[in-house]
Amino acid sequence: ARSYNITLLPGDGIGPEVVAVAKDVLSLAGSLEGVELRFQEKLMGGSALDATGVPLPDETLAAARDSDAVLLGAIGGYKWDNNEKHLKPETGLLQLRAGLRVFANLRPASVLPQLVDASTLKKEVAEGVDIMVVRELTGGIYFGKPRGFGTNDNGEETGFNTEVYSASEIDRIARVAFEVARKRRGKLCSVDKANVLEASMLWRRRVTALASEFPDIELSHMYVDNAAMQLVRNPKQFDTIVTNNIFGDILSDEASMITGSIGMLPSASVGESGPGLFEPIHGSAPDIAGQDKANPLATILSAAMLLRYGLGEENAAKRIEAAVTETLDQGFRTGDIYSPGTTLVGCKRMGEEVLKTV
Amino acid sequence: ARSYNITLLPGDGIGPEVVAVAKDVLSLAGSLEGVELRFQEKLMGGSALDATGVPLPDETLAAARDSDAVLLGAIGGYKWDNNEKHLKPETGLLQLRAGLRVFANLRPASVLPQLVDASTLKKEVAEGVDIMVVRELTGGIYFGKPRGFGTNDNGEETGFNTEVYSASEIDRIARVAFEVARKRRGKLCSVDKANVLEASMLWRRRVTALASEFPDIELSHMYVDNAAMQLVRNPKQFDTIVTNNIFGDILSDEASMITGSIGMLPSASVGESGPGLFEPIHGSAPDIAGQDKANPLATILSAAMLLRYGLGEENAAKRIEAAVTETLDQGFRTGDIYSPGTTLVGCKRMGEEVLKTV
Ligand SMILES: CC(C)[C@H](C(=O)O)[C@@H](O)C(=O)O
Ligand SMILES: CC(C)[C@H](C(=O)O)[C@@H](O)C(=O)O
Repeated sequence: ARSYNITLLPGDGIGPEVVAVAKDVLSLAGSLEGVELRFQEKLMGGSALDATGVPLPDETLAAARDSDAVLLGAIGGYKWDNNEKHLKPETGLLQLRAGLRVFANLRPASVLPQLVDASTLKKEVAEGVDIMVVRELTGGIYFGKPRGFGTNDNGEETGFNTEVYSASEIDRIARVAFEVARKRRGKLCSVDKANVLEASMLWRRRVTALASEFPDIELSHMYVDNAAMQLVRNPKQFDTIVTNNIFGDILSDEASMITGSIGMLPSASVGESGPGLFEPIHGSAPDIAGQDKANPLATILSAAMLLRYGLGEENAAKRIEAAVTETLDQGFRTGDIYSPGTTLVGCKRMGEEVLKTV
Repeated sequence: ARSYNITLLPGDGIGPEVVAVAKDVLSLAGSLEGVELRFQEKLMGGSALDATGVPLPDETLAAARDSDAVLLGAIGGYKWDNNEKHLKPETGLLQLRAGLRVFANLRPASVLPQLVDASTLKKEVAEGVDIMVVRELTGGIYFGKPRGFGTNDNGEETGFNTEVYSASEIDRIARVAFEVARKRRGKLCSVDKANVLEASMLWRRRVTALASEFPDIELSHMYVDNAAMQLVRNPKQFDTIVTNNIFGDILSDEASMITGSIGMLPSASVGESGPGLFEPIHGSAPDIAGQDKANPLATILSAAMLLRYGLGEENAAKRIEAAVTETLDQGFRTGDIYSPGTTLVGCKRMGEEVLKTV
């Protein structure tokens, strides 16, 4: 039997609850497809800060690197919000992304027919939306140097960051995006601010040049301000979007909210080789942590992405996705996606229902 | 009688049509309030490129600087899209903003009761939205140095920009935003990415420190990715938003689209002293240029902002705003905001109807 090592990083807030449920679903789907999954759990985020003094212990990064894929719950919480930068849970996440070199973040945003009413957009606008945002994740202004605080000519304090991309950083993320578009509807929209920023001009130039390798893909370009508008005006115009780290942070969250159900949305972060990082897009929701109210479906769907993009186990991935669809069809809903006429369940029960249909 | 000099920059595409209409409305509203307005027209954008070889001729900037306020139509078009950076119409606009030192861009996004159906958001979500985005306009990554193209350690080409803010740049835009919030509903939300960027950490620190001078204002902070979501989820939660140049570019356009009628939205850009710059937020719409189809209301409402924020002529400003409301109540609509049961009119006719009610 094929066997893989998975590192689980439950993290903070609702992270542990949703990861526990997703782990059971992963195990079962794997074993039904002849795949053995071995799990190890490590500290990350605020819980790592409390236990070890740093948000990403060396041991966690080493274990993650040595495994075949990493499943993360969520990190952060009020408790650590005012920490200095190097002691923030978020800093641990950025270190993990950099440490695993997972430069390509895949963020699907699809409106499920069962949940179309959850969107704040009119039904005819939201219905059928199915977008994949491919966000560059280990470059740009998040990591660019120089950065920090300084003093300007007037003796005043300044804060500064550098947005920088190299040709190969752009090429490799664009290549991933072209491939993703090829498996979808064949349309790729590259988003930048090339009318103002040099970093975006190079971005547009490289993406345009690569297009000749993908003659079957219809490539378009859009400025980021326009993209933010078009996602609201007519999200159905988009298939695959590729963009830089900061624009991807903003636009992938905007696209998620257009679906109306961010408790449902998974993500995958992958590199050229080595383990990928899979996590729900929602946060740690400290308000409802430990109350068995969290929606585990985003983490369960992240586990499906782990099987598909992390391990190449397409059948097990499909099994999980089909189980989630069936569970929704049966009317089970956690509080965040509840509507009258459906059955309100907690985190554990939702997991049990998915397990039954896996 | 009070008298003022206004520089008109019709620009490209539909710019000349909408500015011509707005000029007549300005003149009439002024004279009814005992204000004499003198106009001079100058070249800007693509039309300036064609005539003089640069997007912002010195003569235009000098004239703008010497006047009491500047009304701009729109700039840009396919024809100049592939120009080198220093020969792009957009570059002229950035030079004009910098040259006039208009660091505060005020971008209202209100859903008018007459046009609530134009929004792609559900009626109950869109109804009553009334947001003012205060965008920093002459700093940050748009102007930061160093910028350009380089070579990294691997000999690869790079493109780079610098996001930088000084304490005083943050303080002055925050002050404008606190004052704006005071004249509105007293709520200010500062948007940044202080969990990742040093420039944002300084931003948050300075805005927080200034809050003690405005104890009557309720200040909150939000990360930009969350703000992009919240604008879709529940735009009514926002009153005044203050943010940097690039985040403001993205979020003000997103907020605009939430109203569903970007042909209606004006903007004002003001500095510490000297003339302000007033312009509709829509583009030059080359597709419909010269066909008398453009909606002049955004430019007419920009003229109202010119009277209020540029000249301090509140009565004349109110007169124009009331006239626009009445014209909409009478059912007149240009193509972009037309719905069955209303009266479809062209750009000129819409101007005439507004003139009748001024
Ligand atoms: C927590 C934060 C650093 C992170 C980011 O900005 O990348 C988050 O918003 C995300 O999108 O995963
Ligand atoms: C045309 C462009 C340079 C400009 C900007 O990004 O500022 C525009 O998008 C705007 O918002 O006025």
